[in-house]
Amino acid sequence: MTHPLDAAIALTPLGEGRFAGATTPDYWNMAGPFGGVTAAVMLRAVLDHPLCRGRPAALSVNYCGAVTEGGFEIAVRLVRDGRSTQHWVVEQTQGEGGITSTATVVTGATRDTWAHAMTVPPQVTPWDQTETSDSFVPVAWRKNYEMRFLTGGPRALGPDGEVMSPVTQMWVRDTPSRPLDYPALASISDAFLPRIFMVRGDFSPVATATLSTYFLADEAALVRQGDRPLLAACDASAFKHGFNDQSAQLWSDDGVLLAVSHQLVWFKG
Amino acid sequence: MTHPLDAAIALTPLGEGRFAGATTPDYWNMAGPFGGVTAAVMLRAVLDHPLCRGRPAALSVNYCGAVTEGGFEIAVRLVRDGRSTQHWVVEQTQGEGGITSTATVVTGATRDTWAHAMTVPPQVTPWDQTETSDSFVPVAWRKNYEMRFLTGGPRALGPDGEVMSPVTQMWVRDTPSRPLDYPALASISDAFLPRIFMVRGDFSPVATATLSTYFLADEAALVRQGDRPLLAACDASAFKHGFNDQSAQLWSDDGVLLAVSHQLVWFKG
Repeated sequence: MTHPLDAAIALTPLGEGRFAGATTPDYWNMAGPFGGVTAAVMLRAVLDHPLCRGRPAALSVNYCGAVTEGGFEIAVRLVRDGRSTQHWVVEQTQGEGGITSTATVVTGATRDTWAHAMTVPPQVTPWDQTETSDSFVPVAWRKNYEMRFLTGGPRALGPDGEVMSPVTQMWVRDTPSRPLDYPALASISDAFLPRIFMVRGDFSPVATATLSTYFLADEAALVRQGDRPLLAACDASAFKHGFNDQSAQLWSDDGVLLAVSHQLVWFKG
Repeated sequence: MTHPLDAAIALTPLGEGRFAGATTPDYWNMAGPFGGVTAAVMLRAVLDHPLCRGRPAALSVNYCGAVTEGGFEIAVRLVRDGRSTQHWVVEQTQGEGGITSTATVVTGATRDTWAHAMTVPPQVTPWDQTETSDSFVPVAWRKNYEMRFLTGGPRALGPDGEVMSPVTQMWVRDTPSRPLDYPALASISDAFLPRIFMVRGDFSPVATATLSTYFLADEAALVRQGDRPLLAACDASAFKHGFNDQSAQLWSDDGVLLAVSHQLVWFKG
């Protein structure tokens, strides 16, 4: 049986770097597909391209316009085929709706180099001793992730006007379970509640404008991780003039930093 | 007299979203223009486009291939003209060399909204009590920034094999002095020594693969800042498989977070 994520990011090659895909109800958000699954399908298109070499190093997605229910097309262009990296430009379009998302992908040959982790994962309660959280918002995609919150989980409105912490730490994995790969990791990099919900305790309209995920893990590290939960941490530094930043770290369950991810979020008021 | 930065990012409109520019010796790096000035000129092209509304909110630049000395062309395309944001795609090309850089820009209307800073600037010695540092690497662009290091400045090789801190904090401003604007801020967001030089104390070949800067300041905040120095902080979380991340915060001299910036850096070994 096809995993819901694989169904959501399945692409049919149309030739010359073009692919056909379609939204699925499984990953629906408030008014369009979950941003994580759009990131995953943009990456999937590059990985499906016959000229793609190496593994993803960076993915940047710009969410330009609303994706509506139904089919879409993704066009992939290799703009630079260098010795150590490939640079890709990706555009998602939908019929008369024009361009709905753009992305760039950098791939790199898997190399063993000098390595050092400057940061350590937060010390947290193990997955199997942490309570599973039910959905806190009525969006379909949320059901495809098992989340166990360590701090900054769903909560009630705070005291009027009080600003609360933007930090979330959680254990998270696909459900039904699925071995980790780059598209799944790209999707999880967007699987946090918008930070303004956390700090204000209300539900302002929000939309990710742009998201960049840097993959620090090689394929072997993802294979080692398999379907075990990731430790995911998220923070924000400022809310101002209708935008806020958001930064996340995604760790393996044995403390290896697999990816970091940053986004700029538009909020209404 | 034209400021060297303005000379380096000057563009001549060619019509239909195309612009002509040229590298200048003032911002030369080891083997091409300084990445910050390329970021600035990609942003400049969007700001010079007749359809551009609002102020820059996000800039993502992918450094695809070497820019050589001489002329280049920048093509700007408005892919989505939304009510609250515009999405732009930018490509820099050089004659037979093909595409050298790609970028996306998100602009947003300047709005006063709920605002909150979750992080505070580091407590540091004031600008006028901090010593100015001379160039630590023989690259031209370095001369166009006055840097006063608070921590993580240029230093000699560490003890063999010892891993040192990736953190830099510095006061920085254009020299000759120049009022701050978005292109200048974009350029400064790349004005840090590569982190691997810091942690290993040697000079591995490096190249920024992709850089994203999120502008949290409105134009009024940049005007208020004028030509006074910024407080700039930089860190990294992991070096692995030939890549490392780098994150920076750029603060006004009175403690307002003007921008955050993230990049993924390729290193040789």
